[in-house]
Amino acid sequence: MQEVLVIGSLAYDSVKTPSGVAKRSLGGSANYFSVAASLFAKVRVVGVVGTDYSASDREILSSRGVDLTGMQTVSGETFHWEGTYEANLNEAVTLKTELNVFATFNPEIPEAYKNSSHVFLANIEPTLQLKVLSQIKNPRFVGMDTMNFWISSKKSDLLEVIKNVNIVFMNETEAKMLTGENNTIKAIKKIVTLGPKYVVVKRGEYGSTLYSVDDGFFNCPALPIENVVDPTGAGDSFAGGFFGYLVKNVSHVPAWSDLKQAVVAGTVMSSQTIQDFSLNALKQITAAEYDRLHGLLLKQISI
Amino acid sequence: MQEVLVIGSLAYDSVKTPSGVAKRSLGGSANYFSVAASLFAKVRVVGVVGTDYSASDREILSSRGVDLTGMQTVSGETFHWEGTYEANLNEAVTLKTELNVFATFNPEIPEAYKNSSHVFLANIEPTLQLKVLSQIKNPRFVGMDTMNFWISSKKSDLLEVIKNVNIVFMNETEAKMLTGENNTIKAIKKIVTLGPKYVVVKRGEYGSTLYSVDDGFFNCPALPIENVVDPTGAGDSFAGGFFGYLVKNVSHVPAWSDLKQAVVAGTVMSSQTIQDFSLNALKQITAAEYDRLHGLLLKQISI
Repeated sequence: MQEVLVIGSLAYDSVKTPSGVAKRSLGGSANYFSVAASLFAKVRVVGVVGTDYSASDREILSSRGVDLTGMQTVSGETFHWEGTYEANLNEAVTLKTELNVFATFNPEIPEAYKNSSHVFLANIEPTLQLKVLSQIKNPRFVGMDTMNFWISSKKSDLLEVIKNVNIVFMNETEAKMLTGENNTIKAIKKIVTLGPKYVVVKRGEYGSTLYSVDDGFFNCPALPIENVVDPTGAGDSFAGGFFGYLVKNVSHVPAWSDLKQAVVAGTVMSSQTIQDFSLNALKQITAAEYDRLHGLLLKQISI
Repeated sequence: MQEVLVIGSLAYDSVKTPSGVAKRSLGGSANYFSVAASLFAKVRVVGVVGTDYSASDREILSSRGVDLTGMQTVSGETFHWEGTYEANLNEAVTLKTELNVFATFNPEIPEAYKNSSHVFLANIEPTLQLKVLSQIKNPRFVGMDTMNFWISSKKSDLLEVIKNVNIVFMNETEAKMLTGENNTIKAIKKIVTLGPKYVVVKRGEYGSTLYSVDDGFFNCPALPIENVVDPTGAGDSFAGGFFGYLVKNVSHVPAWSDLKQAVVAGTVMSSQTIQDFSLNALKQITAAEYDRLHGLLLKQISI
């Protein structure tokens, strides 16, 4: 039995995009990751919510068999993020971050989680990522995400996390910021000198690039989406599809060919997420629709 | 025997990029196209130069077996373009366009050119593109490029050209400008309603997207270039590799599988061009180096 543990945010987001506005709708990296990954595999969540977190929002995960033992509910309000996207939908501008119950969050890993085979450290404060990782006994494959805020404010802690994972997920801006390189290829090559064997750089509508020194580059395009409603959660849905694929299909240390398939799975999930606000599109995806989109995506690179 | 006719500019360019400056160095769409295509196939050029055009610059084409019968030399100065690229190397800003001998250019097609099997109408004034095309007897496959200037100033003439070609090459900004769409996928789908069966949208460092209604999308990544010196001519080199591949390898009306391979060939040539100013990198490429880069590119999308 394999399973993926995710530590990340469970949040209410207020988002404005050219398509409209969504106020205090369900969000957070752990929610996007879990819904995406649960299409394939067993997911265990570590996170915290306030007493305002609704039963129906909790139900979105529990109805998908996600293990919520590691989800704490504490007095106070749930983490709230407010952001906006310009006409260029590829990157968010953060307007407000209200940590609320997240400010004092001390992640305790349930005993039953400690044997998790796969771990995803979603974008949170790097020392929390490290604290979680140190409690897992012998994970086979560990990934992480981060954001500009931690790159500028907690770089040494962040580098310590990066050193201890197998794969880093970043967008182009973050990869350039972390490495001080202006060219994405140079940034990618520098990241793998920091510890991880693999890196995935996410490039919005242009897809993503997977790299390792031994294997070189794999480029996966995005699906051709005509109406991008809200890119929030695309990266976490990508990671969810990526880890979900590995947990379901790969019982050894993943090889290059496994990781390429995982990137394709992640791409399908992120392309689904961006077609509506919040988790509205993502939570609708069925196995049949996933298969259809997966076939469409492979066709885009078949030669 | 198959061959490709190109009508386009033979120019001296003054270019500034973050890597440096090149003043009055060889450029022009027909030069980039011809050098790229001549690695594979027989090329026929239609264009005009001034008396300042050097013998050694002419030799770059003639030494590659390019037929220069259609290249006129007239009294005056050669076309001069001056442009610059910001940190974002994906698009040029035109600072100056001195048409010079191009201002009164009236393209006359040598009799021997009129049976050309393939035609590429590089970026020039649309009525000149039409005039050339009307003189070719029964071309099997015709492509065209254009630029923002013609989209805004000569749109109805341009639409007439677009209606009469098999494939349109444009960058993302041009495709959006032509169609009035903000989303690249929507723009692509609109272009094929204007007449051409195929469209290739060039996306700089992100590669390119080929589309037809019947076949859907093919995405080709760029090669991973760490030092982009000067993107000038990338699009024309792409078209040169694309048509060179078809002329050499495909003796029927090209099918989807042929066009995908042509996109790969075009991508290799454009990735080569941008690694130095002017045609300095492009003209160095050997068949062996092409094969190496071609293998590298296919590996980037192999799954």
